[in-house]
Amino acid sequence: MHRDRLLEAYRRVRERTERLAAPLSPEDQLLQSMPSASPAKWHRAHTAWFFEEFVLAPRGVERVDARYGYLFNSYYDAVGPRHPRPSRGLLSRPTAAEVGDYRRAVDGRMEALLASLDDVALAEVAPTVLLGLAHEEQHQELLLTDIHHAFAQSPLRPVYAREPAITMAGVRSGGGWVEHPGGLVEVGHAGGGFAFDNEAPRHRAWLEPFCLSRDLVRVRDVAAFVREGGYRSPSLWLSEGFECARAQGWEAPLYATVEGDRVRAFTLHGECELEPDAPATNLSYYEADAVARFLGSRLPTEVEWEAAAQGENPDSGHQLDVTRDGVRSSLAPRAGGLASLYGTAWVWTASSYEAYPGFAPAAGAVGEYNGKFMVNQRVLRGGSMYTPRGHLRASYRNFWHPDTRFQRTGVRLARDAR
Amino acid sequence: MHRDRLLEAYRRVRERTERLAAPLSPEDQLLQSMPSASPAKWHRAHTAWFFEEFVLAPRGVERVDARYGYLFNSYYDAVGPRHPRPSRGLLSRPTAAEVGDYRRAVDGRMEALLASLDDVALAEVAPTVLLGLAHEEQHQELLLTDIHHAFAQSPLRPVYAREPAITMAGVRSGGGWVEHPGGLVEVGHAGGGFAFDNEAPRHRAWLEPFCLSRDLVRVRDVAAFVREGGYRSPSLWLSEGFECARAQGWEAPLYATVEGDRVRAFTLHGECELEPDAPATNLSYYEADAVARFLGSRLPTEVEWEAAAQGENPDSGHQLDVTRDGVRSSLAPRAGGLASLYGTAWVWTASSYEAYPGFAPAAGAVGEYNGKFMVNQRVLRGGSMYTPRGHLRASYRNFWHPDTRFQRTGVRLARDAR
Amino acid sequence: MHRDRLLEAYRRVRERTERLAAPLSPEDQLLQSMPSASPAKWHRAHTAWFFEEFVLAPRGVERVDARYGYLFNSYYDAVGPRHPRPSRGLLSRPTAAEVGDYRRAVDGRMEALLASLDDVALAEVAPTVLLGLAHEEQHQELLLTDIHHAFAQSPLRPVYAREPAITMAGVRSGGGWVEHPGGLVEVGHAGGGFAFDNEAPRHRAWLEPFCLSRDLVRVRDVAAFVREGGYRSPSLWLSEGFECARAQGWEAPLYATVEGDRVRAFTLHGECELEPDAPATNLSYYEADAVARFLGSRLPTEVEWEAAAQGENPDSGHQLDVTRDGVRSSLAPRAGGLASLYGTAWVWTASSYEAYPGFAPAAGAVGEYNGKFMVNQRVLRGGSMYTPRGHLRASYRNFWHPDTRFQRTGVRLARDAR
Amino acid sequence: MHRDRLLEAYRRVRERTERLAAPLSPEDQLLQSMPSASPAKWHRAHTAWFFEEFVLAPRGVERVDARYGYLFNSYYDAVGPRHPRPSRGLLSRPTAAEVGDYRRAVDGRMEALLASLDDVALAEVAPTVLLGLAHEEQHQELLLTDIHHAFAQSPLRPVYAREPAITMAGVRSGGGWVEHPGGLVEVGHAGGGFAFDNEAPRHRAWLEPFCLSRDLVRVRDVAAFVREGGYRSPSLWLSEGFECARAQGWEAPLYATVEGDRVRAFTLHGECELEPDAPATNLSYYEADAVARFLGSRLPTEVEWEAAAQGENPDSGHQLDVTRDGVRSSLAPRAGGLASLYGTAWVWTASSYEAYPGFAPAAGAVGEYNGKFMVNQRVLRGGSMYTPRGHLRASYRNFWHPDTRFQRTGVRLARDAR
Repeated sequence: MHRDRLLEAYRRVRERTERLAAPLSPEDQLLQSMPSASPAKWHRAHTAWFFEEFVLAPRGVERVDARYGYLFNSYYDAVGPRHPRPSRGLLSRPTAAEVGDYRRAVDGRMEALLASLDDVALAEVAPTVLLGLAHEEQHQELLLTDIHHAFAQSPLRPVYAREPAITMAGVRSGGGWVEHPGGLVEVGHAGGGFAFDNEAPRHRAWLEPFCLSRDLVRVRDVAAFVREGGYRSPSLWLSEGFECARAQGWEAPLYATVEGDRVRAFTLHGECELEPDAPATNLSYYEADAVARFLGSRLPTEVEWEAAAQGENPDSGHQLDVTRDGVRSSLAPRAGGLASLYGTAWVWTASSYEAYPGFAPAAGAVGEYNGKFMVNQRVLRGGSMYTPRGHLRASYRNFWHPDTRFQRTGVRLARDAR
Repeated sequence: MHRDRLLEAYRRVRERTERLAAPLSPEDQLLQSMPSASPAKWHRAHTAWFFEEFVLAPRGVERVDARYGYLFNSYYDAVGPRHPRPSRGLLSRPTAAEVGDYRRAVDGRMEALLASLDDVALAEVAPTVLLGLAHEEQHQELLLTDIHHAFAQSPLRPVYAREPAITMAGVRSGGGWVEHPGGLVEVGHAGGGFAFDNEAPRHRAWLEPFCLSRDLVRVRDVAAFVREGGYRSPSLWLSEGFECARAQGWEAPLYATVEGDRVRAFTLHGECELEPDAPATNLSYYEADAVARFLGSRLPTEVEWEAAAQGENPDSGHQLDVTRDGVRSSLAPRAGGLASLYGTAWVWTASSYEAYPGFAPAAGAVGEYNGKFMVNQRVLRGGSMYTPRGHLRASYRNFWHPDTRFQRTGVRLARDAR
Repeated sequence: MHRDRLLEAYRRVRERTERLAAPLSPEDQLLQSMPSASPAKWHRAHTAWFFEEFVLAPRGVERVDARYGYLFNSYYDAVGPRHPRPSRGLLSRPTAAEVGDYRRAVDGRMEALLASLDDVALAEVAPTVLLGLAHEEQHQELLLTDIHHAFAQSPLRPVYAREPAITMAGVRSGGGWVEHPGGLVEVGHAGGGFAFDNEAPRHRAWLEPFCLSRDLVRVRDVAAFVREGGYRSPSLWLSEGFECARAQGWEAPLYATVEGDRVRAFTLHGECELEPDAPATNLSYYEADAVARFLGSRLPTEVEWEAAAQGENPDSGHQLDVTRDGVRSSLAPRAGGLASLYGTAWVWTASSYEAYPGFAPAAGAVGEYNGKFMVNQRVLRGGSMYTPRGHLRASYRNFWHPDTRFQRTGVRLARDAR
Repeated sequence: MHRDRLLEAYRRVRERTERLAAPLSPEDQLLQSMPSASPAKWHRAHTAWFFEEFVLAPRGVERVDARYGYLFNSYYDAVGPRHPRPSRGLLSRPTAAEVGDYRRAVDGRMEALLASLDDVALAEVAPTVLLGLAHEEQHQELLLTDIHHAFAQSPLRPVYAREPAITMAGVRSGGGWVEHPGGLVEVGHAGGGFAFDNEAPRHRAWLEPFCLSRDLVRVRDVAAFVREGGYRSPSLWLSEGFECARAQGWEAPLYATVEGDRVRAFTLHGECELEPDAPATNLSYYEADAVARFLGSRLPTEVEWEAAAQGENPDSGHQLDVTRDGVRSSLAPRAGGLASLYGTAWVWTASSYEAYPGFAPAAGAVGEYNGKFMVNQRVLRGGSMYTPRGHLRASYRNFWHPDTRFQRTGVRLARDAR
């Protein structure tokens, strides 16, 4: 990869993280509202540590602070012990300002390294740098979903960023279904551009004919599910899903309250009433599965989704941008095809997160990136309002446990073609 | 189905349950050693209730005891509330003897019903009767695995049944691999004979070329895994598997202790030293996956297993029989092909338990039989020493959570063909 | 102590245990419905073990079964490891019949020993034998409260023993208060007759003048507490009590349901409606304290209770007897003084269970009998319907944690004298 | 009380809180490391709220922020619902700076109110103001113990305040015992000066003759307890204490590690080696009780302690001061009597925390201050290094659960006089 483009990408991604954190006070950045979320400050530090650990340290660059390896390692067993995840919210030190210093120090070392390498060495290091940037973009999305969850715990209901109102008018494609003939398809990353190891190898799979709904399931559909007793009807649910819903007292998607036809929700932009035609978000897999059954359909498999998405334009749906002037959101309506394909909300697939045939994790510690999580999780596809644009591609595999609701997750329906 | 054959099958299966319970005292039959196991007495009563609920009651036959519907319903939401599963061990009443009375009363009603129906009505009821018998055979296996677990909690180490020693000499096929060319295969129940709804529909799937190991992973392999620190090496494990192993303090398969090359285990036949060449059992999916990685291989997918098993003779491996004279075990060695294919131990597959393309659960309450469990579980294939012969077929899908160890579960290795 | 009287006491107490267990099937005797309760069979075996461990074994008498020491030790650290308490319900072996054999074998050894000792040796062993009998009588009461709790978990609501109806008519003394002048009093066991170490030494204490209610708090009082929202009024409760009540969902005393003025309860004698004037039972300390506050009073301290009870006749209240013909209950009404002083229900005192000034536990393992439990528990005084008569004395100190409800516990009010 | 003295006291106490918080960053002030601890920022806000709720609001003064009543109520049910205690660490808003604004706004209103009241009204309000100041001083001590616990969770081991080294040389009184003749004593607050309601009424109690150790149990005593296996010897412990120690993995007092004779600990002043003659701190009641037994003694009752402390000079032991120049500590050695009586460490008493005879809580919400906690806790007496001087008096009753270790708690021995 060309040195200048690599540097430019590095700067752009790294700067975006700081812009996303900018609206947060030092105290906001310390919040950890559940073990599976992390403080914003920790996201900022961990993404810097990734470059230090996997790019700089192997090339002999001295670490900024010897203690940070322990504090900011997430889950890489191969590089040593780490601070327990549920205790990240107890790290008042280093302060948010000191984390900023750490990031700048790493950036300085990275720029110096990239400038100093010859072309061969640069080619060798580039894949890890690109992995680090993709990694940081994943944490950008998590930073937003995590602070959303943390703010939702506060009776003061803090607002992350006010934004101009986005109306859903004209977003919908008119409804209906897109049919796919099935047969022997190819899925997985085809080479060309960055991809995570779990997207490979590209491989063949057999599909029966199927249909996908043009639109995501809407707020009004979920309101109907609530109104008609969906949360109390075991016949609509997976057994563990219904147990979970009862144990957790679920009566609506996370952050939402439903009263008749009206649905209100706490968002990063404050409390608001949701538009009935807006895509529903923050549903667990269990809820997505139950709502699909309620609507007489099912969830798509990940192969179905990918086969249908190949060739579609990624500019669709509701997306959040971050500029020098602050946080902005935009909406790209679609006249045909699959609406909100890559924006708005991730869609749950009926597929368990497994290795592709012939999958082999990368050598070394970065081999822990994906493979060791391939159990008990479900694949999500597409991308949400919070997903960086570099992550919008047909082969991208996101994955979460089926009870997860704090991600921006929604539903696209599928059914067998007749 | 012919009336006489149906009656004969009914009597044979029902009697076998009572024979399996015969070595157990009334107190033994009350034991429930964990929420996911059930007392032997409860298995006996629940399998009778199944016929009462789904065959007799819909045809107007009066219930033996109105209270038993509540006590002995397992998980069918559609037929009403039920006694909480973890409390089954607190049901001292009805006594073991009264459960025997209940079974006999149901048998009398069933025989009377089957004798009284005309051929059309018989044809209508037969599938549910066969489902009830297959259901009862599943509980026969559970009765054995559950009492095994319960006895293992007692410092007195009770013996379920002494048996003549079985030697593994000559069981092994000589090792090595059986290769399959892959391509477009068909899997799923093909029609003809009973099958559960989750085995259908038969459908196509694409496979890359692969190999399966002729033998199951042996006791000596697991001893080596233990000896070389496998239980303390996170790089061999799925992340959740390693957490589980540490949290539970696993250091060997369930019931086993490893000291150097020697492996001792508590079995239904008492404490004994395991033969090094015997197949290893009572491993969780997490352990199976780690051991496979330790051995440089991987677990097969369920489609790989089924494609390879089609056409193989089910008479293979170690099996437990129950005769008028008591419990016996037998061993069918194999010279070639896949050894221990259907006996000895279930094998974990790398496949999450999902619906087949086009799957539709049966209408009514029996539709709850399988579909609502299709999340967070792994498919097992083959059959164990405890599996009734009627359950040994290529399309059979067993499923358990990945941390399950109290089932008789083992490992067959797979690898990509080169 | 005279040999014959010792033997006679031994036989009487030992036989009474078996009579109490007689109505229970082998399966009933295995039930353990919570960690702090024990199976009836275990009570029978443990009380035999006590004699074996502390009387027979130290004098060289061979143990009946070497494995029973581990199984039937309750909490004596000094005599070795023991089976974990919450797993007692998993001991299907030895069977109820084998426990009977064990008891008879111990009885034979005890009779032989007591017959063989000379008077000096007899005098030496007598205190431990008497301790063993007092210990067994405590377990007789526990056997009843534990099976009550276990039966209450069964939807079949088994009946321990039918009994002739007892009416409360004429039990009450007419209400009102008995006043005590306070001052320097003496409490604690005065010597003469058996007592536990925690009742000694007798010592002085200073009391301000106080009053005790003649009667126990009645069913109608608790019904009023329920009706007027007592379970939802934090101002009536200790803070931890209110938390406990909410966490456990308490809305009435254990086993009882209140509808308006009517109170129904599940008893050892079946479901029945409680008489409004009957003493209320199965209240935790937290509830007793809240009900007393609701009634404008407080609970007595243990010194107040004992000072007032000294000299009172122990024949009062409702008591359960066990004869050759089965279980019977009797009622001894009182015209004056403190009604139901020693029968019916234990009364909670406001006193934490602590060592008396100068208390020293006995030497050896039996020193673990009482002292090590002197924290986090409350003293109860009097005795219940289930308490053996040998335990009815002014100095007797019963103790339970403040959230305990499965004992037969009630309330006597106190207030400062003006 | 004289208006000027009240105002002066108000200003002194309120300012001291801010000085104690001054070394902490905004992020430090948000830390909540366990449910029973609170963030420093919360302590600052809650103590302001107390004046607003109980002094200002009842006199019609408008609240600074209507939402703060919900956020900063601790446990007063009578004044409305409150934010759940374990979630205090999730309140990033209001920020530490905004809490400072809140405190200043309350101070302004308080000064205005106190200036405006006539003498009658002032006399009426003064007791609540004094209660508020005593309350704030309690929180000053908690602020220190809570941040100590929070900092101990950080691998960076932050230092609250460096201080000049304090040597214990000359602190000890020479050891030995002080005898008290017992008899009828009077304890409880005698009137004159502020006291909490739980210190009243003054009342008589009977004591047998006893002795108290002149010195607190030392670091070297606890080191010996560790070295000789005290943490693994059930015979030294209360049963629940030993269970707790095993469940929590205790091997030394909190924050301390023992290696042979050397004891190191993490303190508010950093990691250091403890002097062998320094009083041991951060022991739970369970450990204090076990160590006393190990040393052949027992813990004193609270009446014994108070009877012995009456008339002693409160200037003794190690105390932390806070001045304009920062945090300082001082040491007042004693030649005779009871050393470290009111400084250094609270001492556990053998007394459960109960109401005194005739105790009646104050009317209204402040009546919840003490009474509702009178169960399951143990009384501590004296005062620690962190206790404000206004709290050092013979009748003061501190109380904590017996497993508490994060308070600065130690041991003074007692024994019966012969």
